[in-house]
Amino acid sequence: MKGIKSMSIIGTGNVAFHLGNSFIERGIPIVSVYGRNLSKSKELANLWRCNVAESITEIETDFVLVCVTDSSVEEVISQLPLGCKVAFTSGSIDLFSFSERKNTGVFYPLQTFSKEKSINIFEVPMLIEADSSDFAHELFDLAWVVSRNVHFASSVERKKYHLAAVWANNFTNHLIYSAKNYLDSESLNWQLLMPLLKETVDKLNYLNPYDAQTGPARRNDLQTIDSQVKMQEGMQKELYSLLSKSIQETYSKHD
Amino acid sequence: MKGIKSMSIIGTGNVAFHLGNSFIERGIPIVSVYGRNLSKSKELANLWRCNVAESITEIETDFVLVCVTDSSVEEVISQLPLGCKVAFTSGSIDLFSFSERKNTGVFYPLQTFSKEKSINIFEVPMLIEADSSDFAHELFDLAWVVSRNVHFASSVERKKYHLAAVWANNFTNHLIYSAKNYLDSESLNWQLLMPLLKETVDKLNYLNPYDAQTGPARRNDLQTIDSQVKMQEGMQKELYSLLSKSIQETYSKHD
Repeated sequence: MKGIKSMSIIGTGNVAFHLGNSFIERGIPIVSVYGRNLSKSKELANLWRCNVAESITEIETDFVLVCVTDSSVEEVISQLPLGCKVAFTSGSIDLFSFSERKNTGVFYPLQTFSKEKSINIFEVPMLIEADSSDFAHELFDLAWVVSRNVHFASSVERKKYHLAAVWANNFTNHLIYSAKNYLDSESLNWQLLMPLLKETVDKLNYLNPYDAQTGPARRNDLQTIDSQVKMQEGMQKELYSLLSKSIQETYSKHD
Repeated sequence: MKGIKSMSIIGTGNVAFHLGNSFIERGIPIVSVYGRNLSKSKELANLWRCNVAESITEIETDFVLVCVTDSSVEEVISQLPLGCKVAFTSGSIDLFSFSERKNTGVFYPLQTFSKEKSINIFEVPMLIEADSSDFAHELFDLAWVVSRNVHFASSVERKKYHLAAVWANNFTNHLIYSAKNYLDSESLNWQLLMPLLKETVDKLNYLNPYDAQTGPARRNDLQTIDSQVKMQEGMQKELYSLLSKSIQETYSKHD
């Protein structure tokens, strides 16, 4: 039977860790791992019972999954033997960048990964793209081994999903950090925010975020907004004002 | 036995709706409801099998829960008969504003409420404050009937929790709206963000938001930040830049 039955992984970060684990759990062996950081490579090799590749050029598997940061993807792929198939996990890199080699593709998990937190890969959207229909289907089938949320997406579409994910995760997490940081600095208990955070997302199973919006800016309650602006300083103050303004403008158009 | 055994509710919004429902479910009857909007008052009166009060001055219960927007709290309470005990549900109003009457207090649920979404009140933090120790304990006991997350908090502390809640819910929800709005405008499927949103909050049971941060700004990946800035316009572009800058500054201090 055709298809990807084993792989090497390049990269030793959060994405490599979680994807590698999930492949092994589902019976796809990792043959070797390569990373700039040798001690991290050895750690993963121990975990996956595989080899540490000594250099990128010596990787011998038919398929390589490149899980390195966006800025290193091109450099890494340029060093791989031309005969091997390769997919990268980055949200922002054009597949077109690799038009000089064959069997290149994308295996982009639309999720936030941290080593300290296990995750249900089965629900993670996997965005697949490749330079040929055959390889695209091989990657789709590989993704289907670990997830039931697999989609074909062009480079342009993937970049847009990546941007939306930055808003939906990176920026929201930073706002939550800001809230925690503020409460910590006031010796208050940030755990009191947890039910609110849970509800913020849970609500979206029933309401879209436009209808779910509440709070002073939504009500255009200028007195509360003004008093809250005064409670803050520097970047926080600036962000508070801009976010409130954005909410006010969003609803003044429609109310 | 002492304590609050029934009440009137002033206000017909989301907070009135959810708190009123939860009191009734736990055996505390609502005697009457008053709101500026008569049809909404009648709706709640039907739901709660209670009277619609014709005016604030005619409310006759010993205890009144005032669930109106921050900007109306003072005006409403000033009209209430002096003999009745009163608590309001606002995050931002000083209890001190009512120092001319007795038995005033605060019953502040740290949560986002929308009528369309039911909620587990039992986990919602209730912040309690009153002008006397006796009334504070009565309010604490009343809150304990519906929640197991009840805390005393001064007006100053409550305002700080309210501000943190604006960051943790109002602003995060608006960012999620922005992500959805962007994907909608590009004819892409915003439901692909749901596992990411769920994980964003779920992660915080294991990691604090400082350690949970991922993404281009966290990695100081200037190329991706720059290309994402260029994909956006107007207020979105401005917000993207400021949020990225805030993340970069947060980690440049510590890395």
